[in-house]
Amino acid sequence: MVLILITYDVNTETAEGRARLRKVAKQCVNYGQRVQNSVFECIMDSGKCREVKHILEQIIDEDKDSLRFYYLGNNYANKVEHIGAKKSFDMEGPLIV
Amino acid sequence: MVLILITYDVNTETAEGRARLRKVAKQCVNYGQRVQNSVFECIMDSGKCREVKHILEQIIDEDKDSLRFYYLGNNYANKVEHIGAKKSFDMEGPLIV
Repeated sequence: MVLILITYDVNTETAEGRARLRKVAKQCVNYGQRVQNSVFECIMDSGKCREVKHILEQIIDEDKDSLRFYYLGNNYANKVEHIGAKKSFDMEGPLIV
Repeated sequence: MVLILITYDVNTETAEGRARLRKVAKQCVNYGQRVQNSVFECIMDSGKCREVKHILEQIIDEDKDSLRFYYLGNNYANKVEHIGAKKSFDMEGPLIV
């Protein structure tokens, strides 16, 4: 199991864009922990990673939206640092601090 | 030089919040490449990292805003994956794909 960070920018100028944003967020909560509005930390194996990537690719508009994946490996405890407020998003697991 | 990802959520419900958001972004562009609205990739040494962290800590409201740092090490070429649009932010250097 490795830590994979998913970050996204979805263009919300249109109603379609706002719908895509909601769908992306809704899918991501199935795979990890929402740590900021558009940032999810997912501890998963490569199969789950392919799965979520495939799902998100179907949702976004590749001409307008941006998705990025950061692979932080399995030794991730010291690779994340937090400063400031922790908002209460829908929690799926413990928050990495 | 290592890759450090800076992500932030600044509460923009108030004019003060929106001012903080602008200040955070303005500082981050001095240290790295804006890859999404609230995501910067910074290739820097530990001194610069301490510097930007100190500056950002002074700007944010720790009760309302969230700052996260992800340390991706020096072997980062294969740790980042991008899908979709690349917006033209103010570029400070080459975009890691």
